[in-house]
Amino acid sequence: MISIAFQGERGAYSEIAAKKLFGENITISPSFSFEEVFLKVKERNVDFGVVPIENSLYGSVFETYDLLLQNSLSIISELNLQINHQLLASKKYKLSQIKKVYSHPQALGQCSIFLKSLKNAQVIPAYDTAGSALISIKDSQIPTAAIASRNASKLYGLKILKSNVQNNKENFTRFLVISKTKSKKDFHNPKTSICFELKSIPGALFKALSVFALRDINLLKIESRPIPHKPFEYVFYMDLSGSMGDMKIKNALNHLAEISLKLKSFGSYEAGKTFKS
Amino acid sequence: MISIAFQGERGAYSEIAAKKLFGENITISPSFSFEEVFLKVKERNVDFGVVPIENSLYGSVFETYDLLLQNSLSIISELNLQINHQLLASKKYKLSQIKKVYSHPQALGQCSIFLKSLKNAQVIPAYDTAGSALISIKDSQIPTAAIASRNASKLYGLKILKSNVQNNKENFTRFLVISKTKSKKDFHNPKTSICFELKSIPGALFKALSVFALRDINLLKIESRPIPHKPFEYVFYMDLSGSMGDMKIKNALNHLAEISLKLKSFGSYEAGKTFKS
Repeated sequence: MISIAFQGERGAYSEIAAKKLFGENITISPSFSFEEVFLKVKERNVDFGVVPIENSLYGSVFETYDLLLQNSLSIISELNLQINHQLLASKKYKLSQIKKVYSHPQALGQCSIFLKSLKNAQVIPAYDTAGSALISIKDSQIPTAAIASRNASKLYGLKILKSNVQNNKENFTRFLVISKTKSKKDFHNPKTSICFELKSIPGALFKALSVFALRDINLLKIESRPIPHKPFEYVFYMDLSGSMGDMKIKNALNHLAEISLKLKSFGSYEAGKTFKS
Repeated sequence: MISIAFQGERGAYSEIAAKKLFGENITISPSFSFEEVFLKVKERNVDFGVVPIENSLYGSVFETYDLLLQNSLSIISELNLQINHQLLASKKYKLSQIKKVYSHPQALGQCSIFLKSLKNAQVIPAYDTAGSALISIKDSQIPTAAIASRNASKLYGLKILKSNVQNNKENFTRFLVISKTKSKKDFHNPKTSICFELKSIPGALFKALSVFALRDINLLKIESRPIPHKPFEYVFYMDLSGSMGDMKIKNALNHLAEISLKLKSFGSYEAGKTFKS
């Protein structure tokens, strides 16, 4: 049976994402941190890890980007999960009684409008959405709620006090599947993810983009992250349309290597389908 | 007297930044959220706001980027503050006794290596570094510490249990000064900040960068943020070397407007000096 590590408790969105891709019949390995997920994959304690990389409202998950670079793992698949956040609490409480709301900072950000409407509730960041559901059970002398998935409500026997509390219906999180080895499949609609550090010279990023633009390679996403020992310099992460098996992608990456201090590829994979949570 | 709003309690790094720029003789307006800071500036309740935009270890402050775009305010100044985080607690506790550590998620991220070495302490995100110092006073039946500035330790009478607990000495936060009106000064070393949304066509970002590269305008930073109603499309924020008073910057921005769906300028200002906290 395929084993999958993800960050958070059972009922986390990452678990839902893993089951959309690999089916219900998998061994799951809930993990406290993203770092733990990467470590389990690296040490072959599990087959794959499933980690969020960006949310369409709140933006990139910095930690995943940084861990990709630090751990030399490959991306073998992705999917987009439509996120519908639920306000969960013990069956004995009404919405108007709630004094505390726990959730992951990303989820709190995605529900900021609803949260502002709760005048009497203190909003408290926690390490995970499903973990917040657990906190609301432990903390149930005080009227405590959590923002988490519908799955977490079933799993922990919590009531949905208010459904779909996200700011915007079009709330998607993109998840990556990380693996110790690169995917060697054929792809219908491939993507390739890379990371590079440029020489600190004027026009460096323009030249880097030119290796793709001049070969008509479509750029899907660019993200910059700070370099720890070089204040206010950046590494760039890029998603490209195409596979590393294509000659023009190979040539473009060779060209990019000429003008980069460092270049790393995370592999090619099929562009993600969209599922509902 | 000049009045300045910043996010956090007295002793926050933003207050330190404000005093480095405007001197000790200012009226300060501590604020719960970044949103409140922007609102106070917009409604002229204060002269200026001081907000962090990025940290050299942990990366960009998303919320500040989003609020800049939403509020149509101008950037009139910036500075880099070297951040030295201190572990603070009530005088009665030793380091080995600490059970809880509070701080802002950015500060917790910047001190992640030290925090991992604290085996018995639970790490809890809070809304502000100086606010965490206040929590550690309220919560002082349990051995509670906070990660905050040396200023906060003096202000709240807390002991420094461990000094300079950040992962890396080269830990700088860049702060912006936001204003209702644009700066009209002459600059020695000017920067210009803009934001734009491109048509969703192949090579769009390459063309956008070309308007600067072909005029030898140096690009200092690029950041992408999601567009809420267009999943997995992005607005780009850019810092350029040069002033909007320069003809080549003006021409480049006119050129960029031709190929953008939206273009907004936050103004020109003097590139920031570096101060110690």
